Amino acid sequence: MTEYSIGLDLGGTNLRAAAVDRTGRMLDKVSGKTQYSEGREAIVHDMVEAIRAVRDRFGKENLAGIGIGVPGFISLEDGVIRNCNNIASLENFPIRDEIGRRLDTTVILENDANAAALGEKWIGAGRDVNDLIMLTLGTGIGGGIISNGKVLRGVNGMAGELGHITAVPNGNPCGCGNTGCVEKHGSATAIIAMARLLGLGENVTAKDIYDLAVAGNEKAIMIFTSMGESIGLVLATLVNVFNFPLYLIAGGVIGGWDLFAPAMLAETRRRSFTFRSTGTRVEQAQLGNEAGLYGAAYLPWSERKGI
Amino acid sequence: MTEYSIGLDLGGTNLRAAAVDRTGRMLDKVSGKTQYSEGREAIVHDMVEAIRAVRDRFGKENLAGIGIGVPGFISLEDGVIRNCNNIASLENFPIRDEIGRRLDTTVILENDANAAALGEKWIGAGRDVNDLIMLTLGTGIGGGIISNGKVLRGVNGMAGELGHITAVPNGNPCGCGNTGCVEKHGSATAIIAMARLLGLGENVTAKDIYDLAVAGNEKAIMIFTSMGESIGLVLATLVNVFNFPLYLIAGGVIGGWDLFAPAMLAETRRRSFTFRSTGTRVEQAQLGNEAGLYGAAYLPWSERKGI
Repeated sequence: MTEYSIGLDLGGTNLRAAAVDRTGRMLDKVSGKTQYSEGREAIVHDMVEAIRAVRDRFGKENLAGIGIGVPGFISLEDGVIRNCNNIASLENFPIRDEIGRRLDTTVILENDANAAALGEKWIGAGRDVNDLIMLTLGTGIGGGIISNGKVLRGVNGMAGELGHITAVPNGNPCGCGNTGCVEKHGSATAIIAMARLLGLGENVTAKDIYDLAVAGNEKAIMIFTSMGESIGLVLATLVNVFNFPLYLIAGGVIGGWDLFAPAMLAETRRRSFTFRSTGTRVEQAQLGNEAGLYGAAYLPWSERKGI
Repeated sequence: MTEYSIGLDLGGTNLRAAAVDRTGRMLDKVSGKTQYSEGREAIVHDMVEAIRAVRDRFGKENLAGIGIGVPGFISLEDGVIRNCNNIASLENFPIRDEIGRRLDTTVILENDANAAALGEKWIGAGRDVNDLIMLTLGTGIGGGIISNGKVLRGVNGMAGELGHITAVPNGNPCGCGNTGCVEKHGSATAIIAMARLLGLGENVTAKDIYDLAVAGNEKAIMIFTSMGESIGLVLATLVNVFNFPLYLIAGGVIGGWDLFAPAMLAETRRRSFTFRSTGTRVEQAQLGNEAGLYGAAYLPWSERKGI
């Protein structure tokens, strides 16, 4: 049988594990809801069982490795999630080593947004470049930087925290301690918060605001413009800093691309000489929800041989 | 004789060339004023003659290569300065190839701030790390990123334009087309501009404002606080993006370190969870004006073998 790898993506509401071969073909996938409210032991148990189910099916002989994408600030040295607004029970717990112990093998831990960027680089919108940055716009904003074909990790594995770049210096407070993080101004959560402030409803979704904007509601249009501008400012910063050929926008919010992209790109153009004078591309990601799963599965190969 | 390299640094008011050996010992240095107002031919002539003078003294046999640091946005592909506020006559001129032709050899062109960061990495404040970012605070603000021991160049050689990161979204207009670039809020020029606005004098220098602040002038103190905060915001962004172990502050403005550093570091701390939770260092550079000269000289070795 061909060599395969196992990827696991621990998302905001569910976890998925998959077996993927070296060419990026998905051989098998298991997914299920995880009861985060039931605490750490339940989550770790579900993660281990999902991986074990896939491994039992394809065997240990041809397994290249196991990669796991999790939300939060990951400390690479010790495989610990240092800060995780979504799953507080996993904070400061040696999750990498505990999962490795239960599976009797080593596993590679990575921030979920880094894993998603790696997936897009491998078989998605970035497969023709070696350097890209991806912003994933969801309830928060995740970032992943692929430099020379690999995840840029930094000295502690905490690089790429692009959602916490300041977009509005005196803006909305963020759980990280800052004010005006781009994830408080450019995410789905930010869209909903602006809609509430503008009286568009208490229980609206980002999709509701999108529909209102398409129908011509000026407040809803303004929300997407404002959100696009905050993403554009951050893109301009990243273009000025990295001069990479490709910047990808991913996540649920890209459903509103036609509404926010014009403001976003105008802001990037205005704030970056490099953007205006080079062929820098800003594009939508292609793999959707699967990017993180593919990227997690690719981690063992990326680590072992480079890309 | 030992192998040596020639570095040339084209500064805002003068140019310098030096012969440096592989251990970082400076064997010889020539410097002189350049009459930028006399136009391109005069500048290129002076650059070529300075390099030739050094090479004639030490010979071609042991010459490892020639590195040149110049201000502005450099397009690496074609060795052209794309945008240079200081020396407009050099814009869009194939300076690398023209100097190479006159010297009958290849030369390596690099942005001066990148060269300075490389110099600090080689034999300065960054010699114990492989990854660092340097901000040079002078009349403008230059940036250099050293990743895995080498200059991070990006796809066109325009990476590291950190002076054009937006620090104040609706701030002062910049020659690059943006508003609120950090170099319009955190440089010596910005200090002087704020002093004028606050009525501290029309013909003051940054040093004058420093002396006023030390003497207790509240407006002058506020200027250094404001300037420090804008640098701190940018540092927080860079820490969140890179998670590198070391960030260096260089340039003439670091003479005012005791006045702006507290505000700068408080802002970085507030705006970066990664800074607060890791051992990230923010320090003064050590090589002063010589950093760019050493870094230019190191370019041939950096290119040839890595560091």
